Amino acid sequence: MHFLELVKKRKSTRKYSRRPVSREIIDKCLEAARLAPSACNSQPWSFIVVDDEKLKDAVNKAAFSGIYSMNSFANSAPVLIIVITRRRGYMARLGGYFRGVQYSLIDIGIACEHLILQAEEKGLGTCWLGWFNEKEVKKILRIPKDKKVDIIISMGYPEDGEIRDKKRKALSEIRRFNIS
Amino acid sequence: MHFLELVKKRKSTRKYSRRPVSREIIDKCLEAARLAPSACNSQPWSFIVVDDEKLKDAVNKAAFSGIYSMNSFANSAPVLIIVITRRRGYMARLGGYFRGVQYSLIDIGIACEHLILQAEEKGLGTCWLGWFNEKEVKKILRIPKDKKVDIIISMGYPEDGEIRDKKRKALSEIRRFNIS
Repeated sequence: MHFLELVKKRKSTRKYSRRPVSREIIDKCLEAARLAPSACNSQPWSFIVVDDEKLKDAVNKAAFSGIYSMNSFANSAPVLIIVITRRRGYMARLGGYFRGVQYSLIDIGIACEHLILQAEEKGLGTCWLGWFNEKEVKKILRIPKDKKVDIIISMGYPEDGEIRDKKRKALSEIRRFNIS
Repeated sequence: MHFLELVKKRKSTRKYSRRPVSREIIDKCLEAARLAPSACNSQPWSFIVVDDEKLKDAVNKAAFSGIYSMNSFANSAPVLIIVITRRRGYMARLGGYFRGVQYSLIDIGIACEHLILQAEEKGLGTCWLGWFNEKEVKKILRIPKDKKVDIIISMGYPEDGEIRDKKRKALSEIRRFNIS
């Protein structure tokens, strides 16, 4: 598949079938994330794959209750990937400090999109989740307080193969050549 | 090409040939960026493509002089893409505020990596540049003060087709299943 087709095909999946996802495929997605570029090759990411049914229920409850319940559709996904961002101790952080940019977040965007596009190629649906109760998620998964969970990715086979058009600004609105 | 092959093939290019890049191909790369997902579909990106030789020289001088000269290799690239991040006025910003995460940076990571992988598929080399004199770049390109330039991407045909192994942590270092 051409890259642009893959990009067009991929969409947020909010309804998942019960079909389980093999760990071999999960690892292939993580391999794509692992190879991502990052500022000063700092690789500020690690991943907890939650595919144990009981633990997943507990994580879902911790993550998506109360004011976070708009994302409770994630309950139906057979896999949750908890993305941990490391934020300190590297040249990238020093450069980021001087430039006022938190490069680790850009790096997380790159790595997770690798994971997500690899999943799409394998026929899996995914959704980026940024709105969840981080404190409770860290408690359940025993993630140290000094680490940050910025993103959770839900993953599974889509319930339907519906294709949605993407609503995006036109190219002419977001691109210009030179100054003119 | 399979997605994972594309990911493996792509590397930072720091030596460019003089072969020009057509605007048709540049627009194809930007199309891949345009279609990227973003928090609340906020699409917080826009791009200035600098391919005019004289302007490019001026931007290079502004961006990569003095303490920023480690990136002066970008001089040899026929195209610079200046990535502008918009940071305010959206639900994504509100959510980000409550969660303490600047989602626009994750979005920029996703969109720019789409651009870069599309470029790779077209045989182009690229480099992520995060270390440059933002103030001077904004002056030259008349970018309003309230906008942010977090990233510049250099682009062109690579001078050589050298394949480098990627130095990355092992998968076992960055991934675990469930709590165990």
